[in-house]
Amino acid sequence: MHHLGLDVGGTNLAAGVVDEEYNIISKLSIPVGENRTIEEITNDMVWISKEVIKKAGLSMDDIPSWGIGMPSYVNPNTGLLVHANCFGWKNVPIFRYLENRLPVKLFIENDANCAALGEMLAGAARDDDNAIMLTLGTGMGGGIIIDRKIYCGADQMGAELGHVKLVYNGVPCTCGQKGCAEAYCSATALIRQMKEAVKKNPESVIWELCEGNPDALEGKNLFDAVKLADTTAEQVLEQYVEYLSCAISTYIVLFRPDKIILGGGIAEAGELLLKPLRERIVPNTFAGNEIGVPNIVAAKLGNDAGIIGAAFLDTYGTVRRRKSDGR
Amino acid sequence: MHHLGLDVGGTNLAAGVVDEEYNIISKLSIPVGENRTIEEITNDMVWISKEVIKKAGLSMDDIPSWGIGMPSYVNPNTGLLVHANCFGWKNVPIFRYLENRLPVKLFIENDANCAALGEMLAGAARDDDNAIMLTLGTGMGGGIIIDRKIYCGADQMGAELGHVKLVYNGVPCTCGQKGCAEAYCSATALIRQMKEAVKKNPESVIWELCEGNPDALEGKNLFDAVKLADTTAEQVLEQYVEYLSCAISTYIVLFRPDKIILGGGIAEAGELLLKPLRERIVPNTFAGNEIGVPNIVAAKLGNDAGIIGAAFLDTYGTVRRRKSDGR
Repeated sequence: MHHLGLDVGGTNLAAGVVDEEYNIISKLSIPVGENRTIEEITNDMVWISKEVIKKAGLSMDDIPSWGIGMPSYVNPNTGLLVHANCFGWKNVPIFRYLENRLPVKLFIENDANCAALGEMLAGAARDDDNAIMLTLGTGMGGGIIIDRKIYCGADQMGAELGHVKLVYNGVPCTCGQKGCAEAYCSATALIRQMKEAVKKNPESVIWELCEGNPDALEGKNLFDAVKLADTTAEQVLEQYVEYLSCAISTYIVLFRPDKIILGGGIAEAGELLLKPLRERIVPNTFAGNEIGVPNIVAAKLGNDAGIIGAAFLDTYGTVRRRKSDGR
Repeated sequence: MHHLGLDVGGTNLAAGVVDEEYNIISKLSIPVGENRTIEEITNDMVWISKEVIKKAGLSMDDIPSWGIGMPSYVNPNTGLLVHANCFGWKNVPIFRYLENRLPVKLFIENDANCAALGEMLAGAARDDDNAIMLTLGTGMGGGIIIDRKIYCGADQMGAELGHVKLVYNGVPCTCGQKGCAEAYCSATALIRQMKEAVKKNPESVIWELCEGNPDALEGKNLFDAVKLADTTAEQVLEQYVEYLSCAISTYIVLFRPDKIILGGGIAEAGELLLKPLRERIVPNTFAGNEIGVPNIVAAKLGNDAGIIGAAFLDTYGTVRRRKSDGR
């Protein structure tokens, strides 16, 4: 048996056929393009799915289901895709465009949840049944795996890891709240912290790395500067690690997962970030010394995680809500 | 069939026999007493259990299991009761003292989790399958119910609701961390906030309610003063509601429960607390307006919740960890 997974992002649309050992045996990716209609994008999704099955030398009969990761949630009460920012979609009847386009059962899930599932099945948490994956990118998303299944809250609209409160009454978050973890721990937030620091410390090597243009700063500039033993960079990293470890401590005291997986651009820093983070998570977590904390590791699969997770949504997807049977 | 539940607290040891409709048909309570050995306390637990079954006119044959709520966690790896502060117990081999003392299977669970389970089965969340109960007392504890079962994390050592971060680098918490939700939202924290306010505003009626002795302040004094339209009290309540709504928002974005239940002394204020809290939880929660927030209600069962929850641990207790089968 083989499995078909799609990872739909704002930039690319990627599809893969995955075998039972979670190997991607064929893969295709096309750009989404700009200002495209929902009909055009969903037609592409159907087309690339058929193509990638052909490319694997298989037919639709070999595929039990169609799993799609999308940058939004489907509201289980309405069946609508709630808010795909990158496409400007709000409450889109996504099933109307996709259902019955392929002769198999369709599963749609948030892309961050698919990535977490993929890393649990085949990547950084493949020996674990419970994991939390955090993606540190433009925003701060993630997925929660409980007992080998995606968990996104009782009404399946949640697990917004980036929007737990971290700094009461803190800086504004893109969501309209104040002090969310995302506003301190995303790549965007780190770059803001770098800008503030470099303006106060023009002697910092960060200034050179961005060629005197703080608006061109990227997260990786920080880690390059840390490698050069730049004091300003070290201070920024130290503060960032404090924020991130405190955010992670909130997930730990509630979920106590086997592993925390970091993905996204910032996680590419590897041990430069992970080592101090592991050190600070212990003192910054309730009973961290007494009962321990889970290991924190970098994601392993990159963009493949989303494809693999989507491909196995039929088996490991969200536990659909058990209706209260009149109790 | 009837069910036997014990609620072991620092002050009292209560036992009840509960029928299938969650009615307590007999109940007994004795003081724990001070400076008692673990042998003495566990002997009392056995004795009161037998007595309460007799009182119900039943025999051990009518009882399928023995459920006990205790003010600590049992570490599932070691079987030790981790830390029962009120008794001064640390890593106590509790099963050695209790197992096989009654001819039925023994279940031990954290008391706050039992209370949450009891409220879900028979109290404030009896129509819901997913609920979070917060107890606002000396500390801030609680329990999480997912799909009608107690959830306390992958390693069953968690769901420390009071120790999520609320105020980064905030006031010290009793746990040794800074800025935990407990340090701002427990009854103890509220009393601290009242003291600070009353010292700055000696004209407040709170001052009279505690007879000029801020050390005698209780949470209820605040709500009495609010009823008298005392400005200082109203300001303290407003700030407390901000803290509490932000803490609750963290649970909502992660778990999106059907209901939030408030227990403990502070919750006795009823609508005086609940009404402003419901108002502030919407703007203080990610997408609170767009996708809504669960209702917040007061616990209904008082101390009976712990007995009822404990009695049904055999059915609704923690899902024991599924071992990773070599994957």
